[in-house]
Amino acid sequence: MEPAPAAPGPRLADSRGAERAAASSSLNPAGAEAQPRRRAPAVAAVLPAGGSGERMGVPTPKQFCPILERPLISYTLQALERVCWIKDIVVAVTGENMDRMKGIIQKYQHQRISLVEAGVTRHRSIFNGLKALAEDQPDSNLSKPEVVIIHDAVRPFVEEDVLLKVVTAAKEHGCSDYDLEFGTECLQLALKYGHINAKLVEGSPDLWKVTYKRDLYAAESIIKERISQYICIVMDTKEDENHVGHHLEEILKNELNHVKVTSGALCPPCRDLEQIILEQCYNYVCVNVMSFDFEETRRLLNMVKESNLSVLYPVVVISVYFLDYKSVPFDQKMENLMQIREYAKEVEKRNILLCGLLIYYPQDEQKLQASLRQGATIIATLIKERNSGLVGQLLVA
Amino acid sequence: MEPAPAAPGPRLADSRGAERAAASSSLNPAGAEAQPRRRAPAVAAVLPAGGSGERMGVPTPKQFCPILERPLISYTLQALERVCWIKDIVVAVTGENMDRMKGIIQKYQHQRISLVEAGVTRHRSIFNGLKALAEDQPDSNLSKPEVVIIHDAVRPFVEEDVLLKVVTAAKEHGCSDYDLEFGTECLQLALKYGHINAKLVEGSPDLWKVTYKRDLYAAESIIKERISQYICIVMDTKEDENHVGHHLEEILKNELNHVKVTSGALCPPCRDLEQIILEQCYNYVCVNVMSFDFEETRRLLNMVKESNLSVLYPVVVISVYFLDYKSVPFDQKMENLMQIREYAKEVEKRNILLCGLLIYYPQDEQKLQASLRQGATIIATLIKERNSGLVGQLLVA
Repeated sequence: MEPAPAAPGPRLADSRGAERAAASSSLNPAGAEAQPRRRAPAVAAVLPAGGSGERMGVPTPKQFCPILERPLISYTLQALERVCWIKDIVVAVTGENMDRMKGIIQKYQHQRISLVEAGVTRHRSIFNGLKALAEDQPDSNLSKPEVVIIHDAVRPFVEEDVLLKVVTAAKEHGCSDYDLEFGTECLQLALKYGHINAKLVEGSPDLWKVTYKRDLYAAESIIKERISQYICIVMDTKEDENHVGHHLEEILKNELNHVKVTSGALCPPCRDLEQIILEQCYNYVCVNVMSFDFEETRRLLNMVKESNLSVLYPVVVISVYFLDYKSVPFDQKMENLMQIREYAKEVEKRNILLCGLLIYYPQDEQKLQASLRQGATIIATLIKERNSGLVGQLLVA
Repeated sequence: MEPAPAAPGPRLADSRGAERAAASSSLNPAGAEAQPRRRAPAVAAVLPAGGSGERMGVPTPKQFCPILERPLISYTLQALERVCWIKDIVVAVTGENMDRMKGIIQKYQHQRISLVEAGVTRHRSIFNGLKALAEDQPDSNLSKPEVVIIHDAVRPFVEEDVLLKVVTAAKEHGCSDYDLEFGTECLQLALKYGHINAKLVEGSPDLWKVTYKRDLYAAESIIKERISQYICIVMDTKEDENHVGHHLEEILKNELNHVKVTSGALCPPCRDLEQIILEQCYNYVCVNVMSFDFEETRRLLNMVKESNLSVLYPVVVISVYFLDYKSVPFDQKMENLMQIREYAKEVEKRNILLCGLLIYYPQDEQKLQASLRQGATIIATLIKERNSGLVGQLLVA
């Protein structure tokens, strides 16, 4: 067994801690009902990830296929590691993919992961994972769990409540005949060699498996949609003013009626914005009403950079300006355009996608409304598509 | 039975005609082997489309859910009607969706379609479709077919070779015990009430069914990918010159190595470009090396408009200019920018997505190469995303 390159994160030494954590987690829609009773069992997960993904029709094994440039298996690890009562996650990968897997764990800062070598079959890989958990090897920092969840590396959309139900069922039934009846060979393998309780996670619509290339497309769209549900608008003016920035905010709220649109403040001590970043908002619209420079955008970008928010998903930042052609000479705008291209190039390395948006600001109220609506459409498009091919562009509404 | 609003297309009165057509079709990768023998049977298709799409999680029944703004069922109809030996296509829709369906047939110019009212169950809908084909009603222009293909309205990716194999099997085996063994109740229904041969199309990876919302996402990505495989570059200069337009073409060919990139000529008599439009190329890059106006683009747009190419899919047109800031005053560019916005608005009504692209053209050869590469990335992004939110933009590489 090879230890993961990332430093192991905090482990739950106390089962009561696990219970509390599960109860307080916002990711558990089933609520208290589905929690493990009294003493939460020690839980680990084994991910067989030694497959070659022949059905996908692409040379890369499917668990390593990129979605928004991040490998599929990283999404599955993320889904499991945000469940704080899963103590250890053991991934079985082939020898030739061991370094690739270490790189993924390091780059995306995964925690509580251990790697074992995959076997020639899926069953053999599961066996290797279970053995690592069961043996209490002297140089291992893994401890023997009471329940092991065996989860496919290519099912990235597993939710905490499903895992919790499985663990509760496993704890209550042990590995009774009931389990065996619905289990597969994998379960019998666990019973025979693992000397520990094990139960397979049964499939459900949410638990669907990425098998074909079309499933990768679907996964990318689902992920893009999920991270586009929350937009933060940062204004360079006070909140109570009745200005064009607020009109834009209203139009965005109306056009994106399923999306949470919130306002953030950049002014020190920046509490609001820090909170929004902590809530994992991946979309920022920096509205510059008073100024025509990149100061506000730069401060916002620095906060996003410092937060490490963009490690897992590309963060979209759109810097908006209102342009009255008559009052400002155009050469100055060209300089700004060049500036945004430079900034965009720099922050793209940190997985931040920066674009500029000039909204035409005529005197005519009706024309202004049309400009604002087009601006909102462009903002929605940039957030929805999240495509790095357009970074640094100065779009015009 | 209600006739479809569109005028019926040419019908195959002669079965030999059907055979020849199938043999000459480029959509039949199975080739001569899979053709019906000697006398091709008269074939019709019945599409039950009365479902409510509850599993989709959206209020619109799934067969009417939009993909690139066109309803899913229109893609399925397109897949069937391009198979010229399918004589009639009968669609069963509920009374409340009858007008919507008529509108779809008219807007997307579907041919050989008849509408019947759906029943309360899928079986009842199939029965209604079969009855319409079997009865030879006096006011019907449908004739009794020998083989009926029953095809789900939500399986848009059916290929001609699969349909041909099914028809051949149905013709050879009739409705023997073999068919019944693998058939479902629908087949028995057809046998009992239809007094005609019928066989269900069996599922395969290509024939997958749009069931969940994620399947709509996958379908959209597959369709976008398919229509992005062929790009036509139109130059305003002669072919044999060694100029920047050809450098861009080379880079596009290198970067998009699975995509067919071809050159079209706009000069009268325009044979080349007409041929490319007939070959259903949905992506055009109009490279303006010699001029800084929209004349070439306008001529291209007119040809695309006249061809009706954009009825079924949005056509992407990117008008490219090479910009040396020092030699041309910027105000003139701003005027061009305004012009493209107007053109784009106008052609968007015809489902043509027009964007502009300014490629920076410095003296430094290395910088020029970088600009061209970025230009190619932007072109690839616009074609891949095919999003109307960005029409009329003047992007800068």
